[in-house]
Amino acid sequence: MVRAAVIPKPNRAVEVRGFARPTLEEGAALLRVTYSEVCGTDVYLQQGLLAETPYPLIPGHAVVGEIEEVRGDVRDVYGEQLREGERATFLDVHGTCGKCWYCLVAKATTRCPSRKVYGITCAADDGLLGGWSEYVYLKPGVRIIRLPDSLSSETVIGGGCGLPTALHAIDRADISLADTVLVQGTGPVGLSAIALARLRGPYTVIAIGAPENRLEAARRMGADVILDVEKTTLAEREAAVLDATQGRRVDVAIEASGNPAAVGEGLDLVRDDGTYVIVGQYTDHGPVEINPHTQINKKHLDIRGVWGIDYSHLHRALLIQERYNDQFQWERLITHRFRLDEANEALDSVRSGEAVKAVIEPWKRAD
Amino acid sequence: MVRAAVIPKPNRAVEVRGFARPTLEEGAALLRVTYSEVCGTDVYLQQGLLAETPYPLIPGHAVVGEIEEVRGDVRDVYGEQLREGERATFLDVHGTCGKCWYCLVAKATTRCPSRKVYGITCAADDGLLGGWSEYVYLKPGVRIIRLPDSLSSETVIGGGCGLPTALHAIDRADISLADTVLVQGTGPVGLSAIALARLRGPYTVIAIGAPENRLEAARRMGADVILDVEKTTLAEREAAVLDATQGRRVDVAIEASGNPAAVGEGLDLVRDDGTYVIVGQYTDHGPVEINPHTQINKKHLDIRGVWGIDYSHLHRALLIQERYNDQFQWERLITHRFRLDEANEALDSVRSGEAVKAVIEPWKRAD
Amino acid sequence: MVRAAVIPKPNRAVEVRGFARPTLEEGAALLRVTYSEVCGTDVYLQQGLLAETPYPLIPGHAVVGEIEEVRGDVRDVYGEQLREGERATFLDVHGTCGKCWYCLVAKATTRCPSRKVYGITCAADDGLLGGWSEYVYLKPGVRIIRLPDSLSSETVIGGGCGLPTALHAIDRADISLADTVLVQGTGPVGLSAIALARLRGPYTVIAIGAPENRLEAARRMGADVILDVEKTTLAEREAAVLDATQGRRVDVAIEASGNPAAVGEGLDLVRDDGTYVIVGQYTDHGPVEINPHTQINKKHLDIRGVWGIDYSHLHRALLIQERYNDQFQWERLITHRFRLDEANEALDSVRSGEAVKAVIEPWKRAD
Amino acid sequence: MVRAAVIPKPNRAVEVRGFARPTLEEGAALLRVTYSEVCGTDVYLQQGLLAETPYPLIPGHAVVGEIEEVRGDVRDVYGEQLREGERATFLDVHGTCGKCWYCLVAKATTRCPSRKVYGITCAADDGLLGGWSEYVYLKPGVRIIRLPDSLSSETVIGGGCGLPTALHAIDRADISLADTVLVQGTGPVGLSAIALARLRGPYTVIAIGAPENRLEAARRMGADVILDVEKTTLAEREAAVLDATQGRRVDVAIEASGNPAAVGEGLDLVRDDGTYVIVGQYTDHGPVEINPHTQINKKHLDIRGVWGIDYSHLHRALLIQERYNDQFQWERLITHRFRLDEANEALDSVRSGEAVKAVIEPWKRAD
Repeated sequence: MVRAAVIPKPNRAVEVRGFARPTLEEGAALLRVTYSEVCGTDVYLQQGLLAETPYPLIPGHAVVGEIEEVRGDVRDVYGEQLREGERATFLDVHGTCGKCWYCLVAKATTRCPSRKVYGITCAADDGLLGGWSEYVYLKPGVRIIRLPDSLSSETVIGGGCGLPTALHAIDRADISLADTVLVQGTGPVGLSAIALARLRGPYTVIAIGAPENRLEAARRMGADVILDVEKTTLAEREAAVLDATQGRRVDVAIEASGNPAAVGEGLDLVRDDGTYVIVGQYTDHGPVEINPHTQINKKHLDIRGVWGIDYSHLHRALLIQERYNDQFQWERLITHRFRLDEANEALDSVRSGEAVKAVIEPWKRAD
Repeated sequence: MVRAAVIPKPNRAVEVRGFARPTLEEGAALLRVTYSEVCGTDVYLQQGLLAETPYPLIPGHAVVGEIEEVRGDVRDVYGEQLREGERATFLDVHGTCGKCWYCLVAKATTRCPSRKVYGITCAADDGLLGGWSEYVYLKPGVRIIRLPDSLSSETVIGGGCGLPTALHAIDRADISLADTVLVQGTGPVGLSAIALARLRGPYTVIAIGAPENRLEAARRMGADVILDVEKTTLAEREAAVLDATQGRRVDVAIEASGNPAAVGEGLDLVRDDGTYVIVGQYTDHGPVEINPHTQINKKHLDIRGVWGIDYSHLHRALLIQERYNDQFQWERLITHRFRLDEANEALDSVRSGEAVKAVIEPWKRAD
Repeated sequence: MVRAAVIPKPNRAVEVRGFARPTLEEGAALLRVTYSEVCGTDVYLQQGLLAETPYPLIPGHAVVGEIEEVRGDVRDVYGEQLREGERATFLDVHGTCGKCWYCLVAKATTRCPSRKVYGITCAADDGLLGGWSEYVYLKPGVRIIRLPDSLSSETVIGGGCGLPTALHAIDRADISLADTVLVQGTGPVGLSAIALARLRGPYTVIAIGAPENRLEAARRMGADVILDVEKTTLAEREAAVLDATQGRRVDVAIEASGNPAAVGEGLDLVRDDGTYVIVGQYTDHGPVEINPHTQINKKHLDIRGVWGIDYSHLHRALLIQERYNDQFQWERLITHRFRLDEANEALDSVRSGEAVKAVIEPWKRAD
Repeated sequence: MVRAAVIPKPNRAVEVRGFARPTLEEGAALLRVTYSEVCGTDVYLQQGLLAETPYPLIPGHAVVGEIEEVRGDVRDVYGEQLREGERATFLDVHGTCGKCWYCLVAKATTRCPSRKVYGITCAADDGLLGGWSEYVYLKPGVRIIRLPDSLSSETVIGGGCGLPTALHAIDRADISLADTVLVQGTGPVGLSAIALARLRGPYTVIAIGAPENRLEAARRMGADVILDVEKTTLAEREAAVLDATQGRRVDVAIEASGNPAAVGEGLDLVRDDGTYVIVGQYTDHGPVEINPHTQINKKHLDIRGVWGIDYSHLHRALLIQERYNDQFQWERLITHRFRLDEANEALDSVRSGEAVKAVIEPWKRAD
């Protein structure tokens, strides 16, 4: 039997269930899970806030583990066969068809209608398709990445899904050398966005977030100016941004807070002719008021939404960790570790912001 | 004496006043006005809806006329001296300093703090700095463009300020060959945006506007599908857009309506990973509600504000008219012509939408 | 038996051979060929000038026909099943793996090592994989496009492979409204590049080419200025370009000539800070001399190579034909039609430039 | 009397001459020179290799000093008046007219025909317009930048003209996170390009250059792989690049060598669909052979020339030094310091490559 944590349906406690160990089809692999992330999205899943989600489901879309079994031809992006015993992670996004208008004409693969995501849009009835499980079934075609020795499993799960998402956002942000950059939000996406913004040669990186433990992490990730959203007023934050930018506001702002109210503030804190990237609004919290004259048109602003990731973002995120982890130490973001049977506590730690990053260790046992 | 129409202060009737004919300083020129446009902005000016506007002021920021007098070295962009008797237009935007952070570092010259605009931000006390006047004083440094014989004064004023503004918006829209394009609004900016979108090789151009006379103009400018905003519901327009785009919504939408409510509709009518250009929100009509999750983040949308124009937009707009006016006949947009002493009626005709385009002819006399 | 024209090996005459009618595997289709293009690339194939080409091979990479047979699930990009009797074309490029570094990280699918091209890199021993044949075998995964009634087979083959290639080049050229554009070469790629440049709202399109019949076609496709490369000197062409651009040279030039000597001339005829797209150098004719100081560095030039096409280019090319063929009439480019047993004459007509466009009609019989 | 070093005419020794101390016109300033750079361009000037250069001339286009005198309104980009005694540098490029087609329509200000450059295109007869002088006359309109206390004069001159030039090149290079980058050349431009590439978050930076002292500097500036062009063959360097890029060649290469032969090598060392920036070909060394098929068209390459700088590049370069000089220590590039009367030795040290960076100290006196 394989033990996995399951959300039975919205607003019900997570419970551990037993599943049969799967038989692999040709081209599939089985991953023995070392760590799986507890993400804000998992909180939404448990609260039933995401559209088109099947229940019951096994959460966990960022996973690091060891190849337990491989059936047939299973290769990485360099064409090299994966082998049992190798450490690996994989792209949760799969099933993208490569045949439809969105894939082939718009080249907007993150909007392919066939796209599926491990731990989010896959039902538990369809197999071990989430990371809060002793094993994950990697279907044929899932993109697997072998981890180099220089990259610890803790570092990779410390980056988790937030790092490639932040990388996608930074790609869209087009930060120039010597720009001033604001990151709204100091959760896992925001913290990695701070690190990656730092890697683009900015003059200043400003972070807005909370609570204290995350602001400390923001400092380590490279923020020059840190504003505690819980201890400052809107006016105080505006004054601080003006002060850090010679009165001009920032060249580039990146919303990674998940709070719709951040959007209006972000629009105000970007300078005229600047760029505002919105990456944190992953669930529908309803509408907000914005002023299209003062906040967009007259500002000559660029606003760029960022949805999901594709393989390239994960691939490059791992290269960045390989090269720059000495500087950022993503593994230090992990503040909480839970067993499968502590999944509800894990969700609590993330919902409250108490954890910077929490992980599930499916093979961890109570002493 | 020079006769000019003046807005004495907000919400007061326009009146004709006499001014002394100015003596030219070195590098200045005097333009005898043939036509000056009546723009929606002039309606806002009379209503006191624009910030930082000095009163009394002479409206009129798009002007065609004849060089009456030149003092010294006054050259066009090709370095050729302008001469008396030549037909010309000029860029209303002037005073851009070329020395500040916005001009030199951000290269966002439309946000230069020294920027001034004829007919909008210039006080009548400072001279004949608006087009609703027998003469306009062209200060040293104002960019003047000689009109080629192939381009009638009616064509140029028919394009007016809307054409270069639309060209700036089309530049920002990045329309690709075979794209579907939506233009919201069929006033002067919208109609020129339709024409210029047509010139980019789209598969379909859809226009939303009113009233009937403007929709007829939209057809002439090249719209394939025309939706009357006064005779259709939001749901009907959405259905029509889905129908025209195989169910996908448009690749690119351009807001040129001036109505804040159009922004929410526009965000909905663009496809995922599409582009939305906002150029019509030229005054502050207050906030609107938008949903940052469904309308920006999940859509992976690009939103681009467009503020003002610089010389390049006017220059290229005239080249476009020179080359393509046979196809679009901008002069046919002119539906109403007024004397200086009819300026209030002129504003009425624009405010009501009765006029597609109204012009002031300062030298026209009552019969 | 299926009759097909075959190049046995380099520099040998094309001959007609008989092949067994193939049995379809699941997901495959059989296309009854109406027309297949005779392209300059076919001349190179017969001369053995392309690297990595297998012989014997059936040429013909642009094909229009009728679906003769379908086995199982064969859908177009909209997810609609293809049916027998429908008119269709297909993307010659196939086999792109979607799994390798080039496909997934660089997103440079035209450089995928697994990429194959019908009629160019497929051996006759592997099946009916070229268009100079009564039937073409469409392997599973080949991207097929159903032709709408409004689009004649003659129009589509008149565009041939040159039209989507030109569309790719025009995408890379980033032509702005009112730009001056030079197209070097008036073969099928150059003529479609002229048409597509015309669709981008340029001020002027200049064409350099030969012979007379192609220059006439260039005029129909929308060139404003036409220079006969056989009747003018380099200096005369430079003078003509300076004359058409107020002495500045063109904003954008597109090399579509296939002649390496054109590259030096093109670099000279683009203005400082302009863009030069190189799309016509499809085979190795050896090196040319260029001056990196005067022709690239000091000019602050952008040079962009364009290799191959992907599905999006073909898809959008057909939308352009659907919408704009009344204006350009691509079918009029077809000047020569040949039977399978006239394939050598067909190649002669293209090599000599006598044909603007030649096509093979595999079912045409001698009277 | 003001002492300045003068190149009397091409291929003549530099000599020290005396000039009258100038009287300032309104808006001008006088800079007491602390350091002026000795650049490769100065070697070309002495050899008569640059077109349109007037002689006699005072070399020195990168200068740091102290404001000696100011006449009237002389402000920096923030609008703040410059005052005597302040440390400052300035943009050598001036006279850009802001009125011509290149300035206003193409927005290619580095190609403005009125553009002048201190120390390169200004005659000694027209004043103290070069940095190898005790004083430099800063004409009205010259863009002056006040140096913050945190930025030493040595750091600024250590960056010299190479740093803003490299910044312009890096802007054009569009390096993405995790890219592999090659810099050809380890002179002042190349060394700063290495540092700035390092600031963009690459996976690997490879440098090709010589001699040993410059390669040591390349290591300090952040190159991961260093290839000595004098001790390796072309094939060895290719092998090393393939080795450092998993056999794919680099994503982005930047030519900063000044050697035309580097262009062919650079084209070969960039991967398919990569980007090649050419910034080092500042004088005409004649043509080189390139293969347009294999090196551009089939590679689907982007090649971007980079000419000169504008104010934004210098402004941002100083911000980068302010923020990152602890990491790069540009002042350490200065290996040689000369008096005015040692100007010929200074040129020798640069021509031979013995100096990484040489500077002139006009007020230094022989002991």
